[in-house]
Amino acid sequence: MQVASIHEPVQAELTQVEAALADVANSDVPALRAMLTHVLSAGGKRLRPTIALLAGRFGDFQPKLLVPLAASIELLHTATLVHDDVIDDSDTRRGRETTNARHHNAAAVMLGDYMFAHAADLICRTESIEVVKLFSRTLMAMASGELNQDMSAYQYSSGTIEYFNRIAGKTASLFATSAEGGAMVAGAQPAWTRALRDYGENVGMAFQIVDDILDFEGTEAELGKPAGSDLMQGTLTLPSLLLMERYPNDNPIEKLFRDRSREDYLAEAIRVVRDSDVLDKSYDAARNFRDRAAECIEVLPDSGDRAALIEIADYILSRRS
Amino acid sequence: MQVASIHEPVQAELTQVEAALADVANSDVPALRAMLTHVLSAGGKRLRPTIALLAGRFGDFQPKLLVPLAASIELLHTATLVHDDVIDDSDTRRGRETTNARHHNAAAVMLGDYMFAHAADLICRTESIEVVKLFSRTLMAMASGELNQDMSAYQYSSGTIEYFNRIAGKTASLFATSAEGGAMVAGAQPAWTRALRDYGENVGMAFQIVDDILDFEGTEAELGKPAGSDLMQGTLTLPSLLLMERYPNDNPIEKLFRDRSREDYLAEAIRVVRDSDVLDKSYDAARNFRDRAAECIEVLPDSGDRAALIEIADYILSRRS
Repeated sequence: MQVASIHEPVQAELTQVEAALADVANSDVPALRAMLTHVLSAGGKRLRPTIALLAGRFGDFQPKLLVPLAASIELLHTATLVHDDVIDDSDTRRGRETTNARHHNAAAVMLGDYMFAHAADLICRTESIEVVKLFSRTLMAMASGELNQDMSAYQYSSGTIEYFNRIAGKTASLFATSAEGGAMVAGAQPAWTRALRDYGENVGMAFQIVDDILDFEGTEAELGKPAGSDLMQGTLTLPSLLLMERYPNDNPIEKLFRDRSREDYLAEAIRVVRDSDVLDKSYDAARNFRDRAAECIEVLPDSGDRAALIEIADYILSRRS
Repeated sequence: MQVASIHEPVQAELTQVEAALADVANSDVPALRAMLTHVLSAGGKRLRPTIALLAGRFGDFQPKLLVPLAASIELLHTATLVHDDVIDDSDTRRGRETTNARHHNAAAVMLGDYMFAHAADLICRTESIEVVKLFSRTLMAMASGELNQDMSAYQYSSGTIEYFNRIAGKTASLFATSAEGGAMVAGAQPAWTRALRDYGENVGMAFQIVDDILDFEGTEAELGKPAGSDLMQGTLTLPSLLLMERYPNDNPIEKLFRDRSREDYLAEAIRVVRDSDVLDKSYDAARNFRDRAAECIEVLPDSGDRAALIEIADYILSRRS
């Protein structure tokens, strides 16, 4: 499945979203302009804006309000990536140098702050204080999810329930808000708005699980960063947690966490994960969320737009990067 | 002049602001709760919330909307301090360990993000999308002001005009927004709202100039951090710029910027600034902004609230920390 095909139903509006993002990058401050262009043109898949635009079809479709909403979501998402790269001390993302690596941490912190502020300004163009509230709370959930992840780094005791809570905050919340925000702007009926939010939540869970699988399964060329980077950060994701459940007494992750400098332990952990069935089990979990997402929107009218939302869920499962 | 006296006219509402901030700190995530309590109870002077509350008297005084506004302003301000300490790599603020020093940069980045989001949520309680827009744009101005400062670090060519532009963005904008936001929430008449914004802008300029003077003049006990920290960061503030204008060909700042490791050059720079008249000249500039602030609000009715705003401007000039 190609990413272009999932964009197709809202291509005209996505083009306007790109123009809005280019406009964000067009700052008076030359240094800011260069940094914004670098991070905003890195070619994300624009999944969240696409979901927001599609959700906006289930009511009074108003591109004038939906386009700033969708652009704001992508900007907010990209801002969190800029800060995540500071937090994780990452040098590359999507095959490009991160802002903290190109410049320094300070510049990346300020750039992310500027982007948050600009995202807030864009979201105000929906003229809906309820949508702004939704966004604020989403960012609160994302930041506390990230903080929870950071606090539980190298904590061997954290389990799959904590994992699901964590990714609900740090990832699924923004997918849920993309769908709910689009529906709210369209004035969709409450049952549909709720269905779309639940769809977004489940799709977001599937997205993060696949992300965490790819961190083991993908090649550096596909990932745009080295494999095993989560374990390097001390972050236990679903495959790691399932492996540890499988081998509670002796496993390479435990060894790696005890001696973080041993690169051979990391390589061994990646190999053991790949050779076991934990990646298949993790895909099962992701597929489960995909199925729940599809169920959630059964209440919506059977239309090309609903089919497109299902297609996004399928794309998320099949993606390699 | 005591800081308590400037709080007096809005003491009841300030108590509610403190309660709102305590409520912000009361997060479900224990780590977040501890960090929020640490930064929010550090005892700032609450100048911005006080200005917002006083501005809210020049119309329909509505504590129910003004208190969240004032709390949001303080939260936003504190969030920028948390990130500034990452940016400047500072270990102490207000005599306490910074979040980045107590924990690490990553935690401080996430904490600041969470606080921005929470500030946005609080500001929504004003139920005014115009106030939210004002806030978003203020944060954009603050972040790009900080970025400009960072980009011009150790740049010997930056002059006083750039300095005034920089502090307008990074500091005066939030003071202006405090006053304007309070007036907007009160539905003050447009001429008064404008006057209050201009007052805030000028008071903010005076505030930052005094801050920059105290960085040379104050003791470590007064400042809660070592003196000369701006120069250590390569930041040229008004006293430094005036000194360089005075001695264009030979001055200790030039020497320090050429060899940043020399602590004796820093000590010499502080000594020369203290011994010259540049601190007096800088106070003249601050006083000039204070006078402009007072002029701006001559259009307001002669009341205890207007007198309180003047008192704040005077306090800002006389403060030692």
